Amino acid sequence: MNIGEKSPEMEAIEKRTRAAVEAYVNAWATNDRAALLRAFAEDATWIDPAGTPPWQGRAKIGEFWDMAHGSGMTLQPVVQRIVVCGNEAILLFRMLVRMPGGGMGLDACDHMEINDRGEIQRGTAYWDQGCMVPLDG
Amino acid sequence: MNIGEKSPEMEAIEKRTRAAVEAYVNAWATNDRAALLRAFAEDATWIDPAGTPPWQGRAKIGEFWDMAHGSGMTLQPVVQRIVVCGNEAILLFRMLVRMPGGGMGLDACDHMEINDRGEIQRGTAYWDQGCMVPLDG
Repeated sequence: MNIGEKSPEMEAIEKRTRAAVEAYVNAWATNDRAALLRAFAEDATWIDPAGTPPWQGRAKIGEFWDMAHGSGMTLQPVVQRIVVCGNEAILLFRMLVRMPGGGMGLDACDHMEINDRGEIQRGTAYWDQGCMVPLDG
Repeated sequence: MNIGEKSPEMEAIEKRTRAAVEAYVNAWATNDRAALLRAFAEDATWIDPAGTPPWQGRAKIGEFWDMAHGSGMTLQPVVQRIVVCGNEAILLFRMLVRMPGGGMGLDACDHMEINDRGEIQRGTAYWDQGCMVPLDG
């Protein structure tokens, strides 16, 4: 448990990891598709939710983004916690999903692996039916 | 997002996954070393926190347990959320760590992969300095 004694190299890696996660969150928050794709590696893997087929590569992750924004949906992330362990991170957040006539909150847990260029190389979102909450819950 | 339409096979897998996570939590809650080891596969991998060397196999995971209980420490888990996605799960919990003269809370996020026998095959704990909270926080 000597996590207070990190090498400068590890501190740099963890700073890069946190920046990548923040870039991902900010892309959702500002509804910036291009920024979202830049946060991922060209050959990144995105799985959402875990156990479903992966979205492989930036082009496919763009299709995921478009699907998430279909039917007039808007998405607003509210960060609950960011945990950084080396080049890995856990992002806990509530995504406020609004659509014409309704919406919901989705408490998601994303696991991210960040590459040497500070891009998300692999991301997996964990959520299930119990993670859905009323929009104003 | 058709997570309401699961096959009976998937429902059985997810029930098994949840049971494994609950067995793990209950072992900590009841201070039952043998039960904790039974929750893991004989050749399981445990990493705590992510980025540190793995504890490989039940015997080594037993050493991890002993280390965690050293110096008169007691550990009490308070579950915040269990998320189940097929044979994977995320466990969010606060571990209340008490020791002579003090203690702390540690908000941890465990990722678990459950095998066909309902055992934890691979577990990784994610926490960092920001996850430490006052014991009565």
